[in-house]
Amino acid sequence: MNDSAIGIFDSGLGGLTAVKELVRVLPHENIIYFGDTARVPYGSRSKSTIIRYARQDADFLLSRGVKMIIAACGTVSSVATGLKDELPVPFTGVVVPTAEAAVRSTKNGRIGVIGTSATVNSGSYRQEILLRDSKIRVFQQDCPLFVSLVENGFISEKDDIVKLVVQRYLEKLKADGIDTLILGCTHFPIIARAISDYLGDGVTLINSGKETALYAAQLLKDRHLLTPCQSDGECRYFVSDTVEEFRRTAEIFLGRDVSTDVSHITL
Amino acid sequence: MNDSAIGIFDSGLGGLTAVKELVRVLPHENIIYFGDTARVPYGSRSKSTIIRYARQDADFLLSRGVKMIIAACGTVSSVATGLKDELPVPFTGVVVPTAEAAVRSTKNGRIGVIGTSATVNSGSYRQEILLRDSKIRVFQQDCPLFVSLVENGFISEKDDIVKLVVQRYLEKLKADGIDTLILGCTHFPIIARAISDYLGDGVTLINSGKETALYAAQLLKDRHLLTPCQSDGECRYFVSDTVEEFRRTAEIFLGRDVSTDVSHITL
Repeated sequence: MNDSAIGIFDSGLGGLTAVKELVRVLPHENIIYFGDTARVPYGSRSKSTIIRYARQDADFLLSRGVKMIIAACGTVSSVATGLKDELPVPFTGVVVPTAEAAVRSTKNGRIGVIGTSATVNSGSYRQEILLRDSKIRVFQQDCPLFVSLVENGFISEKDDIVKLVVQRYLEKLKADGIDTLILGCTHFPIIARAISDYLGDGVTLINSGKETALYAAQLLKDRHLLTPCQSDGECRYFVSDTVEEFRRTAEIFLGRDVSTDVSHITL
Repeated sequence: MNDSAIGIFDSGLGGLTAVKELVRVLPHENIIYFGDTARVPYGSRSKSTIIRYARQDADFLLSRGVKMIIAACGTVSSVATGLKDELPVPFTGVVVPTAEAAVRSTKNGRIGVIGTSATVNSGSYRQEILLRDSKIRVFQQDCPLFVSLVENGFISEKDDIVKLVVQRYLEKLKADGIDTLILGCTHFPIIARAISDYLGDGVTLINSGKETALYAAQLLKDRHLLTPCQSDGECRYFVSDTVEEFRRTAEIFLGRDVSTDVSHITL
């Protein structure tokens, strides 16, 4: 079991930002990533549809014998909250690790949360933050257009379109005086610089992919499931749309070319 | 058979702009609309995935006994070109009617085409235009962010974000001196005013939904399939995601409330 891979899935390719962090934290582990690119985006879909898709994604990873499952998707983590209890292996979404990091980070007790509409409407981050410190004030904003900006290459902090959309979505949070902002969608780290430029140095951004990777590493350690292997782990990627589409955009999220390690599956 | 409904499908709700035109042109016909909202958008998906989805969409309409099928989706019409020959009822996509209208419209022989990446990469509009007049010059531009703008309510011609994205995508077409622009995606009529404001009065916009409705009416007339009924036709709507999602956004495209006539199906 300890030699089995860590399974990680997302509605699309945004979860690759979490894979990048996971490789950094746990370089010896094998990783199997599944991106449901034929059905992305989940963020605008209904709760019942999101839950059905999340179960199918997890089942695919289990069929590959993974020892742990990470839902690297703010939407799934927020909406399919019952998934943890259905699975025969340890599981984490991105919400709990990220909420914990935000609570540790804030000095003034004012935390902002941004994500897809489904994530924000679920109130999941707010709930996990308040569970840990009921005096914290949480300010939420859904930013659905951020996902499209990233996927269509509008990512530079110097791009007027990026700057304007960031301003439109975040001006209220800025006025609310937050000192910590949860990037509650795995796409958002790609435009972190534009977000940070607008909010200024006084606001700490919390990257859900990074916090989830650190959390998963601790979970595996606690359960004595870390691999004893000392060589570099391998990453395998699976997508439900064609691999060509993956090749075109994976590098945006992962920062390196992985075109040889990707396969197509049909759910 | 003449009393059967006209079937019309789209990857999502954009095709409702075509329903609106169809009702105007053929007020006595019954219409069954299917929006594959659980799998929208098609425009960024691979060719094989788009073809598979289109077949399933058409099969659903056939199961409801329709006398004709309209693919009110630029992507399906451009990519799943073999669908016409597979179906037992008359079929039209949006490409042929729209290309014909553009050829009739142009004075200077310079036509622009905008659509999703799949539509533009397929070259379908260019091909149908050149079949009709090989001397016309066709200038293409994919505008993937337009779909997200519309779906997230960024539609006012006075919105700086809308204006900037329109300018970014269309400045080359403007410089190319087109006098006719095909709106090759059913979402785009919603931001027609912003597009028109930027390009100026000298450029005629061709609405694919409107042209396809006119074309379908002629096709039914030629085949003696128009309903003899003289009362108002009925519209039924089916979606693959929840009806709540449909209720929230259908009015943007259709210009009226249709919340009582919608049902959910699972493909």
